[in-house]
Amino acid sequence: MKAARFHGRKDIRIDDIPEPELRPGAVAIDVAWCGICGTDLHEYLEGPIFIPAAGHPHPLTHEEVPVTMGHEFSGTITALGEGVTDLTVGENVVVEPYFVCGECAPCRAGNYNLCTKMGFIGLAGGGGGLSEKIVVERRWVHPIGDIPLDQAALIEPLAVGHHAFVRSGAKAGDVAFIGGGGPIGLLLAAVLSAEGITVIMSEPGTARREMATSTGVADHVIDPSVEDAVARVMELTNGVGADVAFECSSINAVLDQLFDAVKPTGVIVNVSIWGHPAQLNMQKLVLKEIDLRGTIAYAHDHPATIKLVQDGKVNLEPFITGRIHLDKLIDEGFMTLIDHKETAVKIIVRPEVSNVS
Amino acid sequence: MKAARFHGRKDIRIDDIPEPELRPGAVAIDVAWCGICGTDLHEYLEGPIFIPAAGHPHPLTHEEVPVTMGHEFSGTITALGEGVTDLTVGENVVVEPYFVCGECAPCRAGNYNLCTKMGFIGLAGGGGGLSEKIVVERRWVHPIGDIPLDQAALIEPLAVGHHAFVRSGAKAGDVAFIGGGGPIGLLLAAVLSAEGITVIMSEPGTARREMATSTGVADHVIDPSVEDAVARVMELTNGVGADVAFECSSINAVLDQLFDAVKPTGVIVNVSIWGHPAQLNMQKLVLKEIDLRGTIAYAHDHPATIKLVQDGKVNLEPFITGRIHLDKLIDEGFMTLIDHKETAVKIIVRPEVSNVS
Repeated sequence: MKAARFHGRKDIRIDDIPEPELRPGAVAIDVAWCGICGTDLHEYLEGPIFIPAAGHPHPLTHEEVPVTMGHEFSGTITALGEGVTDLTVGENVVVEPYFVCGECAPCRAGNYNLCTKMGFIGLAGGGGGLSEKIVVERRWVHPIGDIPLDQAALIEPLAVGHHAFVRSGAKAGDVAFIGGGGPIGLLLAAVLSAEGITVIMSEPGTARREMATSTGVADHVIDPSVEDAVARVMELTNGVGADVAFECSSINAVLDQLFDAVKPTGVIVNVSIWGHPAQLNMQKLVLKEIDLRGTIAYAHDHPATIKLVQDGKVNLEPFITGRIHLDKLIDEGFMTLIDHKETAVKIIVRPEVSNVS
Repeated sequence: MKAARFHGRKDIRIDDIPEPELRPGAVAIDVAWCGICGTDLHEYLEGPIFIPAAGHPHPLTHEEVPVTMGHEFSGTITALGEGVTDLTVGENVVVEPYFVCGECAPCRAGNYNLCTKMGFIGLAGGGGGLSEKIVVERRWVHPIGDIPLDQAALIEPLAVGHHAFVRSGAKAGDVAFIGGGGPIGLLLAAVLSAEGITVIMSEPGTARREMATSTGVADHVIDPSVEDAVARVMELTNGVGADVAFECSSINAVLDQLFDAVKPTGVIVNVSIWGHPAQLNMQKLVLKEIDLRGTIAYAHDHPATIKLVQDGKVNLEPFITGRIHLDKLIDEGFMTLIDHKETAVKIIVRPEVSNVS
């Protein structure tokens, strides 16, 4: 079968590899669509980062480069491994793409996203969504009912937004301020909006602001290059400040704005991945008794996330800005996201080299 | 009456000023003992900081320099203002030394320590504990029963520790790591220990480490100049990490250690006041889903704090390292704390110029 495999930095190849074999307790899936994640771009441009380099096999998968990529995918069950009785062949599903040890303190506490050996399907080994077929442990397979398979490829990043929402403790009626309207900022806004939270988003990119507005996921959209974002949040909250804020840019000036824009006792959730240390004004953290919280990936979020889409509270369709074939992965996928990240939100890939069906 | 008043940087004078007049809803108190706080030292050396400078009266007290100092004090009620019926003349009390507006969003939410106009008695005006007498609004007066008046002067900083404990969410059976064993670190340890929490403290000062050990407030005491504090915490927690950690040093290297020493999902409470920005490794905040929380002063903490002392769960006596008269405030009080902060923990002042009674 065809699979996009990472061999090294700027060296992702569409290889012909053996189909994965079904095993007890696992589920065989024909991949329908797989999204390209910012993490994939980082691996391509600067990797291997999460991908296990040659000579450094992942402690759980024992795999190293080359590995199949893709962790945001949907598909259809084609076979069930021994002992799997609660799913059906032909059922459409998404995958929570984890490898976890099950033994460390976070795993035992149910925080499997913090597993000390944690790896991702599509990065650490175990195949990936940028291939025709995959076999995944039953535990990580989530039925999606009648959600269209193309939209379902966005459930994984939507679950990232859901987890950030859960970490924030925000509730219906609250006001949230999101700094940064990239794919995660937008999908987070979709979750917050679906949960009855008023969303104020600050984003300098015109296309992203337009998407935040046209999809209705943000109630107020600020262009921080022409407006004072903090002053606008204060105006919109009668001088009180936002209840919660989300850092989705990994830009220090944005983080600083969040400290000014949240109310005393406000919560700031850092969603973005920072490649450099942040400078933090501790006096603001202290004098406003702010909580700054980290969030990573998701744990126990998929059922609620899927339900938001099934119930029509989140419409993922407008966030799909491109549909391509696997053989166009680099040229039309990665390069579009790298060169035109302003206008491209989520490009999804059909793991075929023929026409898109 | 005699009062220590701040006139300017390095200019605190023992002045003779009129006694305060009793007013409706207020309580007249003869001060017994008043502790010297690190904040007082900062005002002396670098102020005015919180003290309202000439021409900049405080928005609630409308006072400016000179102001009477002292906000950690105990005393005895000598008279009750009109409408105060639930206290008794002769009763011993401590004061929660606040001025708050009662109208801002934090005040309305009950978080009066975050009042947008907040001021402290003994800094913002309204008299202070470094004088013979004071008149305070009933709301801020807390009876202390038979707690000795000298120890009671330490209830204010103990309440700071109590509030930090509450902010951390720590519960009996948890393990706490405290970075820094100054007065607040030690009193915080006393609260945590009283609440059934195992305390690990890291502190380079020999005298402070000895006090943490001899008072029993820390279960394990680390000298970070000769031991790897993080490795020791890991060893003491079977490789898991501390449940909560407290930054009590305003040293960046200590903050970094806390990020390494807490478990995934751990909570770090920043208790110290930072005069400079902190450098933060956001990756650790994210990948361990750490909560970094600010804490300032106290709100609703005094009753529980007083009860810890009344019940014998916290013994404040060993933390009193000096007792002086008001006329020795600078020479034997401030200068001892500035020049010998290693060995001095809490110096308390009797607002008399005669012998200590």
